Amino acid sequence: MHSAEDVVREFWRLMATNDFVSVGRVLATDFVLEWPQSNERIRGAENFARMNSAYPAHGRWQFEVTRVVASVNQVATHVHITDGTQVAEAISFFQVEDSKISRLVEFWPESYPAPSNRAHLTEPINR
Amino acid sequence: MHSAEDVVREFWRLMATNDFVSVGRVLATDFVLEWPQSNERIRGAENFARMNSAYPAHGRWQFEVTRVVASVNQVATHVHITDGTQVAEAISFFQVEDSKISRLVEFWPESYPAPSNRAHLTEPINR
Repeated sequence: MHSAEDVVREFWRLMATNDFVSVGRVLATDFVLEWPQSNERIRGAENFARMNSAYPAHGRWQFEVTRVVASVNQVATHVHITDGTQVAEAISFFQVEDSKISRLVEFWPESYPAPSNRAHLTEPINR
Repeated sequence: MHSAEDVVREFWRLMATNDFVSVGRVLATDFVLEWPQSNERIRGAENFARMNSAYPAHGRWQFEVTRVVASVNQVATHVHITDGTQVAEAISFFQVEDSKISRLVEFWPESYPAPSNRAHLTEPINR
């Protein structure tokens, strides 16, 4: 038995190999991924691997895990993803059972301009 | 001393009162909020209350906490927010120290249409 956090760190390590079939090692047989923003659900390790392999890439995908919050069987991560050209932030909520990921709910927040009408209450994070 | 999860649940309970000044009870004196998507940082409970009070609303803000992952001093939540007209999803990463929230990093993912070129690998979550 591995901790939920260990299983999720292994998930991201395997993602970073870009061998998306290998990620199946940490997925439960009834694995389900949900992307609520686009109302999409993907069932099973095979469809998950096909999805990732088919996604248009300009280079090798790199994954920087910047934030991890883990309880006994749930883990939330914030990961910075790039292929050298495209960049994305993924927020992922994992459910782990018996050292396998059974459910993943993932969000992809996009950048937007800071509203000028609240500029007096804020400062830029990065100048 | 309260658990980090208790402190964060109290944060959302106080947010639901719509008395945003009251939320200061669970914020550390050096509280910082970051919205990475817009590169905005807000410092302190007072600016946080002013920001929330000034945000254009059509009605009372309601907060439905749909997902909580908590460790000893970090908590991630997914919250559905509406004022009866506007709807939003907030993904929040809290740092809790001495029963107060010292840091909050928050993301606001927006809906987007499901790409048709991967429809053969997906099903809708909600039909």
